[in-house]
This record gives sequence, C-alpha cells and structure tokens, in this order.
Amino acid sequence: MDRGTTQDVRGSLLTIGDEILLGDILNTNAHHIAGALRAHGFRLGKVVVVEDAEEAIAFQLEQLTAESRFVIVTGGLGPTDDDRTKSAVARAFALPMAVDETDLKHLMARVQARGGTWSDRLGRLAELPQGATRMAPGRPMAGFFLEHRGVPCYFLPGVPHEMETLLAEVVLPDLVRRFPDRPVCRKRILRIHGLMESEINERLSGFDPAFYGIKLGYLPQTGENWVTLLATACCEPDAEKILQAAEEKLVTLLGRAHVIGRDQETLESVVGVMLRERGWKLAVAESCTGGLLAARITAVAGASDYFDRGFVTYSNQAKQDLLGVPEELLREPGAVSRPVCEAMAHGALRHSRADAALAVTGIAGPSGGSAQKPVGTVFIGCALHEQLIVERHQFYGSRRLVQEHSVQEALALLWRMLRS
Amino acid sequence: MDRGTTQDVRGSLLTIGDEILLGDILNTNAHHIAGALRAHGFRLGKVVVVEDAEEAIAFQLEQLTAESRFVIVTGGLGPTDDDRTKSAVARAFALPMAVDETDLKHLMARVQARGGTWSDRLGRLAELPQGATRMAPGRPMAGFFLEHRGVPCYFLPGVPHEMETLLAEVVLPDLVRRFPDRPVCRKRILRIHGLMESEINERLSGFDPAFYGIKLGYLPQTGENWVTLLATACCEPDAEKILQAAEEKLVTLLGRAHVIGRDQETLESVVGVMLRERGWKLAVAESCTGGLLAARITAVAGASDYFDRGFVTYSNQAKQDLLGVPEELLREPGAVSRPVCEAMAHGALRHSRADAALAVTGIAGPSGGSAQKPVGTVFIGCALHEQLIVERHQFYGSRRLVQEHSVQEALALLWRMLRS
Repeated sequence: MDRGTTQDVRGSLLTIGDEILLGDILNTNAHHIAGALRAHGFRLGKVVVVEDAEEAIAFQLEQLTAESRFVIVTGGLGPTDDDRTKSAVARAFALPMAVDETDLKHLMARVQARGGTWSDRLGRLAELPQGATRMAPGRPMAGFFLEHRGVPCYFLPGVPHEMETLLAEVVLPDLVRRFPDRPVCRKRILRIHGLMESEINERLSGFDPAFYGIKLGYLPQTGENWVTLLATACCEPDAEKILQAAEEKLVTLLGRAHVIGRDQETLESVVGVMLRERGWKLAVAESCTGGLLAARITAVAGASDYFDRGFVTYSNQAKQDLLGVPEELLREPGAVSRPVCEAMAHGALRHSRADAALAVTGIAGPSGGSAQKPVGTVFIGCALHEQLIVERHQFYGSRRLVQEHSVQEALALLWRMLRS
Repeated sequence: MDRGTTQDVRGSLLTIGDEILLGDILNTNAHHIAGALRAHGFRLGKVVVVEDAEEAIAFQLEQLTAESRFVIVTGGLGPTDDDRTKSAVARAFALPMAVDETDLKHLMARVQARGGTWSDRLGRLAELPQGATRMAPGRPMAGFFLEHRGVPCYFLPGVPHEMETLLAEVVLPDLVRRFPDRPVCRKRILRIHGLMESEINERLSGFDPAFYGIKLGYLPQTGENWVTLLATACCEPDAEKILQAAEEKLVTLLGRAHVIGRDQETLESVVGVMLRERGWKLAVAESCTGGLLAARITAVAGASDYFDRGFVTYSNQAKQDLLGVPEELLREPGAVSRPVCEAMAHGALRHSRADAALAVTGIAGPSGGSAQKPVGTVFIGCALHEQLIVERHQFYGSRRLVQEHSVQEALALLWRMLRS
C-alpha cells in the first residue's frame, strides 16, 4: 500500500467482528472513521475486517503496521469471551500482558459503587499488553494506545458511541500532533438532481480533472447523483482554492438548476433554509411513505422553525377525517390517484397553519399493485398557497426503496417550486 | 486465515473503492454478499477494502487467493478511468490482456443500436485477462470469472443491482456446485430488550456454548441487545436441531419476558402481529421523533392491517389542533412533560379509530435543553383503551440517536403492555 509519504498521510483500519463477516450488520464504524479522518486531512488506505480469532488479528496487525503510517483497530475489547484483541496484540508484537494497578483500583471502585460482585473476568479488563496506555483512564470505556516500530496504533471499542468519543477526544488530536506537516486532502460532493449518470458523463466529457488538479468521481444515490472532487495540497487555503475553481466549472457544465447543494447540504436541509428565509411553514400529508417524509424533514436540527405538522393518513378513514378527502374520490378513482393526491395537499394546507404542503400517496408494495397501478406507482403533490403541482412517478425495487424514492422526489418537487 | 477446510468453506471479499475509504458511502455490497453467502452455507473469513490503484489491488489479490478457498471482488469494472481491476488482475496473476472477439461484436452492436459513437475507451470493455470468462456474455453487465491455482475468483461490478444479479445467477450456483459436501453454517439472533450487556453476561455465565456445539456472540444495538448463536453441522436439519436446543436454554436463562423475537423479528413486526391477532388498530402522536415512529411501523409490509394514522404534531399549535392538548398544559408544565404526553396519547385515541395509541414528546437536541429537562429528556406514553402508562426517559447522544432510542422505547412499551 502507498503509505502516502509524498502525498497525504495514509493509515489503515482493522475492524474485528464476526457480525460483519456474517452479514448481520454494516460496518458503520469504518464509515464514521473514514469520514472523520478525511475531515482532518488524513486518509484511509485500507480497511480490513477479520473474525474474532487471535491468529487472524495478529497476522493482520503485523501486516498493517508494516505498511501504514498509523493503524486504528475497532472491536474486541469487552469482557466477554469473544474478545481476543488484547491477546492478539500481545502475540503480534511479542509483548507480555500486564495489569495496570491504577486501572484495577478504578474498576473495583466502580463495581463496588454499583453493588456488583468482583470476578476474574472483570479483572481482565485491567490487563493490557506491556507498554500500552489507557485512552480514558478512570472512565468506563475500553480503548488503549500502543506504538509499534514508530507506528501509532489506536485500539478502540466496537460500540459506536464509545468509539466515536475516543476517536474525537484522543485519536484525532494525537494524529494531528504527530503529523503537523501533512498535506491537506479535501473533498467536495456536488449533489445532483434530475440528471442520470450518463447525462452527467456527457456534460462533463470535456472536463479535464488533471487541469484543475483534482480527482473526479461519480456516486449514484437514491434519487440523486453525487459528483465528487478530491484535492490534495500543502495547506487548507490552497486545497480550497483548487476545489472552488473546479466546482465553479463543474456547476456551469452540469447546470446550476441541477445542483441541490454540496457536501452535507441535503434536499431537506436546503429546503429548510429556503422556507426559513421566507418565514413559511410546511405541512405534509403521507400515505405510502408512512411518516418517512416528516421524519426526514425533522431529522434536521432546527426544523421546528418551519415544520408545522404531518398527517400520516395511512387508512382511507384517516384521509377523510384529517384532510377532508371526499369519500367518493377514495372509492373512484381510489386512494392512489391524482385527485386524491390533490385533495391531500389542499387538505394539509387547510388543516394546518402552513404555507406549503407536500402530499404522497402510492403503492409501496410488495403487494397491492394492479395492471393499471403497479407496485411503485406514486403520486406526489406540492401546494404553495394557490399553486399546485401533482406528479405521477413509477419507482422500482423493494418497499423501502419505493418509500425512499418517494420522499426524495417529494422534497425535490418542493425544492424546484420554491426556486421558481 | 483459517481456510475452514475441516469447518465451513471460507472465502474472502475484496472491495475496490475510494468512496468507502473516504467515508462517502457504506460498504453495503459487503453486507449483501456476506448475508447471501451465509444463507448458502458459506462464510466470509475476511473483507478487505483497497483503493482503486493497480498495485494495491494486485498485492491483495495475490494474498487472498493464497489464503482463501474462493475470492469475490467487487468494483472497478466500468469504462471510467478509475477502473483498474482488470489490469491489476493481469499483473497479479502474470496474464496478458486479451480481447474477446464475440464480446467486442456484442458491444459494438449495442453502441450502434443506441446511436452512440465507438471509442477506444469503450473497446477496453471487451478486454479481459487471458483465461478469464465473461459472466453474462451479451448482456450489458461487467463481471468475469478466473481460476487461479485452483481458487475460483469472481469479479463483479460495484453497482449494487448488477452485483446482486450476478451473485445470485452465477456466483452462488457455481460455489454450490464446487463445494457439494460443505458443512452447513446456520445463525440465529435472539433480540433482547430490558437487559444490559453485563446483565446478559451474568445470566449466561453458567451457559457453556461448547456443550451445545455453538458459538455465542453479543451485539449491542440501539435500544436492544442481540445474543447470536452460530451452529455448523453436516446438514440443515442437524444445524437447526443444535440451534433449537441452545436457543431454548438461552431463552430460559435470559427470561422469556426479555426476548422480543429472533432473526428478522423486530419490535415493530412483533407488535404488528399482536395487534393483527386482536383485530386492533394503532395510532401514534409524535413530537420530537417527527414521524420516525410512524415510519418504522409502516416499514413493515402489511402494516395497513393495524396502523390507522399518525399525528406528527411538531408545533404546539398542532398539538392543540389535532390532539386537543389544552393550551394551559403547553404553557405550564410545557410541551415536554408527563401531562402533555398523557394528553397526546388520549388525544390520539379520541381523534382516530384506534384501540391503542403511542405518544412521544421530548427534546431531541442539539439545542432546547435546560437544567430540569436536559437534551435527551423524552416522555413516552401508551394508551390501550382505558389503560395508560407514561414513562420518563433520559437518552444520550446525537439528535438522531435520541430520536431512535425514543422510537425503540415507545415500541417496547406497547409490546410490554400488549403482552401483559
């Protein structure tokens, strides 16, 4: 692996966990660590997931310390029997295990305070390979540090919130201190709506990343496409300048009207800013998305400034009671139709204090489809005071995917209407 | 790595992609492949993610073919410049590149049919390392197969739906044919609520996994803990018998009242089954969770059998309008209080056709907290006809985590009340 000496500083991540190898969970820790490192000008050159077996861990540790400038390890630090990281470290680096006496006292005090019973198993928590130091002495979190042949190795617990705490408080500050002259690696994401990947490729065919000194990437997402820019420079301002020049050109080529925002600017946060600026309130009326649209809007901190209420009118009765959708429409043309979607959007405005309303009704599946209205048929409406637009969409994939696409297109419709 | 010759058949997965190393996306392909392999009696022994660089890919390929019984590679097969997998394969296995003439004809025909222009770049798509065969000849999907020193290597595109198609149609059938006598590896998850990991450890301290022939694991999740059982046997029925015996003992030790369900049985699906059995309808009234509770309930297919409606009463005005929460209560003791939560639960019952109602009001953060009611203070109420319980919780972590914990505890409260 390229250690990145002339380029950026590259490290490795070793994740220990059978759950990932067995397909039970996603490696969200790797995702978090990769993003946090990048934000501080570091890069991951490799991620390895191995099972919770001493030999496998030891083998991988030896290899990664030989080829990386730093190594982060997650998982395998608890008191349970499947935690073999510490003994693997001792084996890989030929170190004896040693008990940290201060640590042992802290631990005994904590167990006593809780009225628990002391056991040898708990005692193992105070053991560490010789030369290792605790990251959070006196606090109830596993995590230790060890330098091996000049390569700093950070061992973090697998529990996400503990891992995130120690990464932010200990690992990142230590890395920043160790590599003061590291080149800065900065990334930008342009979030594109309304263009397929092939259309993006076509529009960017004349763009030369090398001329701008960036690396260009494409990343399809649910209902949007990401164009990614990566710049490496000696300092932040230089990297930022490179990104800015390339971004300007790219936005022109792609068309400003297709750019939702950059980096963390999601549709829901961009729409939120536009609503706040106008002093407008938003209401939503959902059937097949079942609350997911409201949930995405309220995932943004400060959404209470502009989000008034949501009607999750899952049953037809609820559509009548809460939104005043006429019973006749629900009978014919039926709940999944343009007239019902219109009535839902109008009803949401009428039964709220909102200036804008979104309405979604469709067939998320897996059952409930027909020849005329197959699974994935979704009507999306947006009302801004007097103005109303209803679109019919056909989505594909699982129930969850149909719901997510519906939410995305609903937000995109509001975004387009607020812009025009 | 243990190749699993005497145990199960273990392979490796190599994922190529800068997006994962930069923290842009999660490695969902690895998750899907791990689960699909397990369902067919195979195991992943290792997952490695490397960047899109020929040397890194070649190095890793050599290593993984030396230590695994099969290797799956994803990513790096498209026509764009960052796809170096094919040349890395040629380098790692010392093979020249060769053009597949049939493939070239197919490709030219497709481009012509679309009215596209032929380019050398497109021509590269018809190249493969010598000895490799196309997985889907004539179809517009990358993906090829190559055997190296007796180890089957499957190269799949990184685009999820293409990868999933080729995995199901080509890779899994081929693996099943190659390893007919493989032992069967079966897993079970017991989903536990209301016990901390240390309490689980204590209750299971007398349990000997080896006696039952299983491997035991623990996995903390948001608001629940998973106890995992892994059995390896010569055939399905034997593996199932082993799991069943161990499961029975474990459920007794943990306490049946703490077991939500197994495997895919989430709180929302278990609660759904209970509501359907009673012929009951559910309504929810949400403030700080902003629709997330309704979204989780309606993520279950068939939720329309028992889910009536949801009130996302984000503003105080909405709480008054839709649920009839008295204005005085909203002023004092305020929206985040036991009386308001009670009024929301009662209001949801009164303003719906439901038999059961859940209500959530709290401070998700990051701002809005006070000394008396810090961020993470959440009141959760459940009303079943005349019966009402309101709980006060204190959650920690990000806005999203507080919202997720709130949803989980709300579902758990309903689950406990429906059981009793």
